[in-house]
Formats: sequence, structure tokens, C-alpha cells
Amino acid sequence: MGLRPAADGPSVVACTTCRRADDGADHPRAGARLADALRAVRASDPSYAGVAVEGMPCLFACSEGCVVHLRAPGKVGYVMGRFEADEDAARAILNYARAHAASDWGQVPFREWPDGVKGHFIARVPPPGLVAE
Amino acid sequence: MGLRPAADGPSVVACTTCRRADDGADHPRAGARLADALRAVRASDPSYAGVAVEGMPCLFACSEGCVVHLRAPGKVGYVMGRFEADEDAARAILNYARAHAASDWGQVPFREWPDGVKGHFIARVPPPGLVAE
Repeated sequence: MGLRPAADGPSVVACTTCRRADDGADHPRAGARLADALRAVRASDPSYAGVAVEGMPCLFACSEGCVVHLRAPGKVGYVMGRFEADEDAARAILNYARAHAASDWGQVPFREWPDGVKGHFIARVPPPGLVAE
Repeated sequence: MGLRPAADGPSVVACTTCRRADDGADHPRAGARLADALRAVRASDPSYAGVAVEGMPCLFACSEGCVVHLRAPGKVGYVMGRFEADEDAARAILNYARAHAASDWGQVPFREWPDGVKGHFIARVPPPGLVAE
């Protein structure tokens, strides 16, 4: 175990090991399915090209799956969870990530929040060397 | 609102606006009291000098207060919560932060975890440009 290089621009890091209550033993975990849905939705629309999709095992929020971490250089990042592993969730996450990437410091005006992310925030984290005022 | 410069080395970023159920209206919020406890414990022992203590309003995990974010350059960071605003919690957080700062990539062996941080993890977040394997 350890770290490996990943995109250093705006990114959605999806937890690939998250389970949902309806996960069976015989198919990929919900987290892996959400990561696939994020990649498929991203590929369907060039306006998402500025947001990378990454997978990473376990974001330590197992009771809140499916979980993603949203980050961009110099901006406040977020941990969001309680997502279904489906296209609607992937689209809401990517729409929010696109607005986040375009924001000054990571704060997206509430009026721009996709409905699909409301109520899904677990935490926010400041970027290196900075804290929120 | 926005971002302001903070320590760019190993740090504990304490949410200063967290409330606990026993918070009254007439004294500082639990988050601010935990930040004060972290600063006091840090100042009491030079072995904590390598870990900065920062305050920041609202880490978006209000139901899990008191909440802190632990970070260090190039290492996986953590969001931890459900802490009391007292010296015991501050010492456990700083002992963990000191071990985190000394670790290769942010993973502290479980045998080194202070009892006071067990069960307090909310999420982990990879450092910029990297993800966990």
C-alpha cells in the first residue's frame, strides 16, 4: 500500500470499495460501479473534460457509501457520500465538480448546486497551506 | 469569505464553529474550546512543535462535532470527529498527528493509534496529485 500519481487538476476521486445495502457478492461493489458511471458520464459530454475521474480504495467513510472526494488546486475540497451507484448520481457529482472547478476558491453558490448533491456533504477540507476564513 | 494562508507543514485544522450538545449560549463554542485545548497541549511539550494548530470555521460535518482535519504534505489526510472539547481529546489528536507527520505516506500503524482517536475517523483524503493504491 501507499500512494500513486493521479491527476493534479480538478478531480472526482471515487471510493471504489464502498458498498451499498443492495450489493450482492457476485458483482462489482457499488463504489466501483459509481466510478464507472462517472467515467461514462464524463466521456459523454466534452464540458466535463476539465474534471478528471479517479478511483481509490476506501475513503474511510464506509457507513456513508457511495463516497467521493472532490478536489481542485487551491480550492476547498469536499467529501460527499450517500450516493447511489447510478448515472443520475454521477451526473450530479460531475455538474457540481464542474462548477467547483470554475469557482474562485471552491465555494459553489447554493443556487448552482445540482439537486443530486444536496444533503450529500460529509466534510470540507482546505487546500494545502490555506484555511477558510 | 475565502481562503487565507496557514501553515503548510503537518497541521491539525480544528473546526472552530462545532457545537456539542452541552454548549451553552454564553461561552465559546466547543470547537473553539477544542482549538484552545490543542494549542495549550501543543505548547506544553516540544515534541509537538512539528505539528501546527490552525482554526477554521465549519468543516461541514456539524453533526459529528467536534471535528478536526489532519494534514501533512504528500500524505493522506484525515477528517476526524465526535471529540469532546477537552485536554484528553487534544492530546490524543496531537499524538496521532505527530505519528502521522512521521509516517511515510500518512498511514499510522494501528498499534500506534492513541485510544482517544479510535472510532473518530470520518474520512480520509489523498494529497494533491496522488491517490492511495
